[in-house]
Amino acid sequence: MDATPLTVQTENAFQILSGLLDDDVQSVEKLLEERAASPVSVIPNLSGYIVSAGGKRLRPLITLAAAKACQASEMKPVHCLAAAVEFIHTATLLHDDVVDESDLRRGKPAAKNVWGNSASILVGDFLFARAFTLMVETGRLTVLDILSNASSVIAEGEVHQLAVQGQLDLPTEDYLKIIEAKTAALFEAAAESGAVCADAPSEHVRAMRDYGRNLGLAFQLVDDALDYGGTTSVIGKTVGDDFRECKITLPVVIARRRGSAEDREFWDRALKPDTQTSADLTHAIHLIRSTGAAKDTLAEARSYVEIAKKALNPVPASEFKQALCDLADFCVDRAY
Amino acid sequence: MDATPLTVQTENAFQILSGLLDDDVQSVEKLLEERAASPVSVIPNLSGYIVSAGGKRLRPLITLAAAKACQASEMKPVHCLAAAVEFIHTATLLHDDVVDESDLRRGKPAAKNVWGNSASILVGDFLFARAFTLMVETGRLTVLDILSNASSVIAEGEVHQLAVQGQLDLPTEDYLKIIEAKTAALFEAAAESGAVCADAPSEHVRAMRDYGRNLGLAFQLVDDALDYGGTTSVIGKTVGDDFRECKITLPVVIARRRGSAEDREFWDRALKPDTQTSADLTHAIHLIRSTGAAKDTLAEARSYVEIAKKALNPVPASEFKQALCDLADFCVDRAY
Repeated sequence: MDATPLTVQTENAFQILSGLLDDDVQSVEKLLEERAASPVSVIPNLSGYIVSAGGKRLRPLITLAAAKACQASEMKPVHCLAAAVEFIHTATLLHDDVVDESDLRRGKPAAKNVWGNSASILVGDFLFARAFTLMVETGRLTVLDILSNASSVIAEGEVHQLAVQGQLDLPTEDYLKIIEAKTAALFEAAAESGAVCADAPSEHVRAMRDYGRNLGLAFQLVDDALDYGGTTSVIGKTVGDDFRECKITLPVVIARRRGSAEDREFWDRALKPDTQTSADLTHAIHLIRSTGAAKDTLAEARSYVEIAKKALNPVPASEFKQALCDLADFCVDRAY
Repeated sequence: MDATPLTVQTENAFQILSGLLDDDVQSVEKLLEERAASPVSVIPNLSGYIVSAGGKRLRPLITLAAAKACQASEMKPVHCLAAAVEFIHTATLLHDDVVDESDLRRGKPAAKNVWGNSASILVGDFLFARAFTLMVETGRLTVLDILSNASSVIAEGEVHQLAVQGQLDLPTEDYLKIIEAKTAALFEAAAESGAVCADAPSEHVRAMRDYGRNLGLAFQLVDDALDYGGTTSVIGKTVGDDFRECKITLPVVIARRRGSAEDREFWDRALKPDTQTSADLTHAIHLIRSTGAAKDTLAEARSYVEIAKKALNPVPASEFKQALCDLADFCVDRAY
């Protein structure tokens, strides 16, 4: 594939999609603010902090675009659904920050560092409950079925991830199972439920589901590669979060598998909270780049992007379908 | 009211109701086990630990009885609903134990002390999500509306309770608002949604909603009185939990309001985590009894029980309606 025209074509895929859906995005933003309201002031303060903290609104955008690509005749229920999807995402972020003991989120102190763990847990619960109230307003039980199932799968994936902590020889299949649950399930549900809300035929619903799941897998793979700086030597500000939390991700699994005995000893020591030192990250990044682990993680992501785009074949051509395809490309291209 | 015949009549109200609904309870138990299943073994282990830890199943029993009293023609959806109600309750318990830093639950070490805070948060999320999947199976959007609203109100009440920590002059109205949210909302939703699942007329749905809310208020008032041993000098094993967690409950608010300057100083010191000593509980119990705070808290509970029973007037007479009335009496009588 020639990278140059692709980059030109897709580098603004995210902004193009946001622009196409501008009115809908505004309606969703309004709902997010309205439905986080509560006389208990901690709730709107804390949720406003995280909801407005520069989140990309990637998942609700997918919901909106999926509904539009499936020729939704009425967008009001889709707005409720998209807001619900973002609330579920926000609730999982609030709980993840407590679980992972992360001190930063989107470059700002995590909500738990401002309001405490207890408030983060409970406001997460609040937003999760409000998400279901929003879904009731779509008037479609199938939407609630899809997103309640996705929510239990997400929690399952998070618990699975906890359970494999320290397991450095994690099989790739287990890693993929975890990211499919903790990340791809919500992308899948966001796209699928958007199609359901558009009363799309089952073939198009299935197409959106497959698109969402494969995009979600690619998205997490790219995220995991970027946490070690990807393939470039320019290190972004969010590098090293997974490493500091001793998360077992594909770049680590590959680098360790390909490493010398000495490298393996390094990984086994450095990915334990008690024995990791602050100097370890630089060496970890070096190993991940020199073994080709970052490159191959991104290649894996690229293969899921191709599956995601192909999954959309049954959906009739439209600017929204095109934007979803471009978004998938952009998702991997951002890593280069 | 003559207490003697009342006690004879009602002391087994809970067992009578369980007996009446034995087959339904078995179906609900089966669902609770089936729907907590997961290939990620921590999930069934942790949820099995708390779900089977001798919970009284009070809320699902109310759902079942409400549906029966409203002449439900089909019980399968009601079983799903009752299991959902218990899962929501269990999820809130798991999160509450993390929030309150409680080390014991139902006389056993809290789940978080066995599996850790992170697993308790995530398994709570899992059960909460599964509750919504179960509700989808009732085929009734109204059920999801009622319980998603109740769930956000519960979280709101918990956050409110956090926010008033240390506020020893808490107005009674604020206390009532908190327990209405954190406790009564789920009782209300359990009873109301049971009636909805029975396709009951709106008058009966409203009756059940009012019954549930007032029963829930009474239940929490009794619980708060019992935490200081109620009016008896026989101290049960669960005495002092709220005190150790520095929770502001009605017995404390009344005792402090009626106390001397010296008593107030005691309360203001003893209900701060940093200045409470292990000897303080005995004196707190003494003050709560001597000021009549326990007695008056129970009298308040009794008044809500009477409202709860009266609320059921529009519902046709049946053994289930009678059992719900007796349950309300039992709820307060257990404190004497």
